[in-house]
Amino acid sequence: MTNTDPIRFAHRHLLDIARLDAADINQILSLAEHYAEIARTPDKNRDLLRGKTQINLFFENSTRTRTSFELAGMRLGANVINMSVGSSSVKKGETLIDTAMTLNAMHPDVLVIRHGDSGAPHLLSQKVDCAVINGGDGSHEHPTQALLDALTIRRRKGRLEGLIVAICGDIQHSRVARSNIALLNIMGARVRIVGPTTLIPSNAAKMGVEVYNKMSEGLKDADIVMMLRLQTERMQGSFVPSIREYFHFFGLNKEKLSVAKKDALIMHPGPMNRGVEIDSEIADDLNISAISEQVEMGVAVRMACLDLLTRETAA
Amino acid sequence: MTNTDPIRFAHRHLLDIARLDAADINQILSLAEHYAEIARTPDKNRDLLRGKTQINLFFENSTRTRTSFELAGMRLGANVINMSVGSSSVKKGETLIDTAMTLNAMHPDVLVIRHGDSGAPHLLSQKVDCAVINGGDGSHEHPTQALLDALTIRRRKGRLEGLIVAICGDIQHSRVARSNIALLNIMGARVRIVGPTTLIPSNAAKMGVEVYNKMSEGLKDADIVMMLRLQTERMQGSFVPSIREYFHFFGLNKEKLSVAKKDALIMHPGPMNRGVEIDSEIADDLNISAISEQVEMGVAVRMACLDLLTRETAA
Amino acid sequence: MTNTDPIRFAHRHLLDIARLDAADINQILSLAEHYAEIARTPDKNRDLLRGKTQINLFFENSTRTRTSFELAGMRLGANVINMSVGSSSVKKGETLIDTAMTLNAMHPDVLVIRHGDSGAPHLLSQKVDCAVINGGDGSHEHPTQALLDALTIRRRKGRLEGLIVAICGDIQHSRVARSNIALLNIMGARVRIVGPTTLIPSNAAKMGVEVYNKMSEGLKDADIVMMLRLQTERMQGSFVPSIREYFHFFGLNKEKLSVAKKDALIMHPGPMNRGVEIDSEIADDLNISAISEQVEMGVAVRMACLDLLTRETAA
Repeated sequence: MTNTDPIRFAHRHLLDIARLDAADINQILSLAEHYAEIARTPDKNRDLLRGKTQINLFFENSTRTRTSFELAGMRLGANVINMSVGSSSVKKGETLIDTAMTLNAMHPDVLVIRHGDSGAPHLLSQKVDCAVINGGDGSHEHPTQALLDALTIRRRKGRLEGLIVAICGDIQHSRVARSNIALLNIMGARVRIVGPTTLIPSNAAKMGVEVYNKMSEGLKDADIVMMLRLQTERMQGSFVPSIREYFHFFGLNKEKLSVAKKDALIMHPGPMNRGVEIDSEIADDLNISAISEQVEMGVAVRMACLDLLTRETAA
Repeated sequence: MTNTDPIRFAHRHLLDIARLDAADINQILSLAEHYAEIARTPDKNRDLLRGKTQINLFFENSTRTRTSFELAGMRLGANVINMSVGSSSVKKGETLIDTAMTLNAMHPDVLVIRHGDSGAPHLLSQKVDCAVINGGDGSHEHPTQALLDALTIRRRKGRLEGLIVAICGDIQHSRVARSNIALLNIMGARVRIVGPTTLIPSNAAKMGVEVYNKMSEGLKDADIVMMLRLQTERMQGSFVPSIREYFHFFGLNKEKLSVAKKDALIMHPGPMNRGVEIDSEIADDLNISAISEQVEMGVAVRMACLDLLTRETAA
Repeated sequence: MTNTDPIRFAHRHLLDIARLDAADINQILSLAEHYAEIARTPDKNRDLLRGKTQINLFFENSTRTRTSFELAGMRLGANVINMSVGSSSVKKGETLIDTAMTLNAMHPDVLVIRHGDSGAPHLLSQKVDCAVINGGDGSHEHPTQALLDALTIRRRKGRLEGLIVAICGDIQHSRVARSNIALLNIMGARVRIVGPTTLIPSNAAKMGVEVYNKMSEGLKDADIVMMLRLQTERMQGSFVPSIREYFHFFGLNKEKLSVAKKDALIMHPGPMNRGVEIDSEIADDLNISAISEQVEMGVAVRMACLDLLTRETAA
């Protein structure tokens, strides 16, 4: 697929994976594949968003995700503006709306929002005239992360359908896990979640996944092992595991990995806590780790989303 | 007016409203009107400042104003650089000059400065070779705010001359009020200031305004009701009103507004303290509130100012 | 020299001055001279880096140096991304590598790094596929500062060879001094270092310099007097001189300067501590101070380095 092929993608916003179907996802991934090629050439720019305005509105710090979106917009020729809003200086709810109305009046074409509250991007999308991309909201969703993960898997394994994907660790607090579970289910993969009971969501049974509490069982014959960051900052007032014990039971090392498929692919959304959820020996082994490729595909997927969401509807 | 019409604007800097005359103001507003149209089209860019450098030098935080100037410069094709200087880390006066000399050596074409000290932009303008725009200095002036307010009024009411404009609240600490009073007087509007005695400047009698201490009197027959933000952060060591009492006497609600003209327009420079100086019922009523349009006109006015101040003088 | 002349410069990174020879330095300076001309014209942009990505990765705050690199990249048409990484939030070493791998996956063409640890840029350069420019590492090197100082001297004095250059003050903690000493030795200048014994490196004898502890002797017949910033923030646990005493013995004023050549040029890398290492009477005398020209040449030198390091190797 090239970016001159007809696009059926008809969404105005990218708020969560749940609203997409398999054809949407395939279109995004194929277009992203095209942008991934361009990023490896000397001139990485395409001027499709020239004259358009992208505002990155980050209520939570995230140098990595913000940089990825910023670069994606710049390479498409957009005017990209970063707004970092310290959560401490903002009263929630009402102020988000005032901020939204203010930004909307500046005629942006796309708003990328990251916010600590689940549902903030959805609320924003109801108040503004432009496309809204969810760059991560609370423990709800992080759809571009799931898309970049899917693209990475598709490039390495040739498909998503039928693969056994084990998502391991702090599922409870992970928007990355929620978006990945939704996407992988849509695309026909078999999803397992693996972690201590305290970090497994209580509604896991309804998520279309198999639940495991032991790595030795959850990783058995897995094609993909997706490790999550232990998000101790989200564990206010609840059980915080000891790092040492956590690594002993759930940290990925060669031994635990040995029960997975021989060519199993290791993924991590970053930033990694080395020695907590993943051993450096695994993380740095380029034969099995796709962690760098995930970052690379991140820019490509975001270019595809920015492109698709800012296209003028043909008359 | 289009941007190919002859321009008589002959100022090198935009430091305050006092130095402008009615013709200057009309030229800025007409050119801004042109840019407001462009911002509603798919390609919002014009390359008039291509190859030029704009530095936004903000000694006070202001995401809103900084974003507006940044977007204005980007849409004109300038290279825009943001410098946020924490006021705590700077010794005043001398260091401002050193910063100015440093920036000047980098050959910027325009410097936008926001500073906590009244007069800082004027001082800066004497030390550099480029255009200086005052983005707000202490409680002195905020000229682009007054220009965007004027443009908003002109679009809604067709004129400025003869209108009754009631500026309400914390006049004492408001550079927005000072710039608006200056501009509205130049353009022949009738300006009232309304607020508690403690928040009315002692030299109000010389400002060419009528002073009121009651909303019921100050708002009578007003065409425009301009609410100000209560700037408690500037009230060091002086009287700080109780929020509850303040809202009771000076917060704008439907009842207080009822004495104004039926088609009175409500304005606020933002960010609003809802329930302090303005009731949400008023702020969110798009029939009477021009608050979003003010933000929209902000980008347009700043594009006009950047354009005018960086034009080469014809030989 | 124009930027169409053949370039022999064959380095992939700019990590320190020690790896350059006189011909390299002359090529950078001549190309920078060309960019300095362009910066004085109305259109300061050249699109040589269009489609390329520059990431400024600053682990230490430096508004001045970051702005200079940002402007240099923008004027060359690059997509420039700033990443400020608070040193407190980073575990050193390993995390630098993870950051490097993450950035590398985004296909930058050039990374500018400033880091508190000597050797960090070198470590980074071994992990990434793009050009790395050292924007200052610990007390090791700051090569673009030495290059801009050299260009300033060459423009004012017509040459570097044979000049007597006195570098004064806190040599011990100064990467600026180390880079300048290396460059000036390569180019055949005679370098003196002048300061209190406690601020002279213990290995000074091997640095190819003459060491002086008195300004009256060190400045005698000097062509160039280069003052350094007193870096009290780097003097943890060691001797911190009293400001008053320091200025008395080592602060540059007219009296101390009187023993230098009549047309001696005064330099300072900025930001200055006025009244500590330099008297305002000297700093602000444009006949003898080249401090602003240093800043101006900073942008030009960085444009030259960015240009040279991102050229495609001819087939």
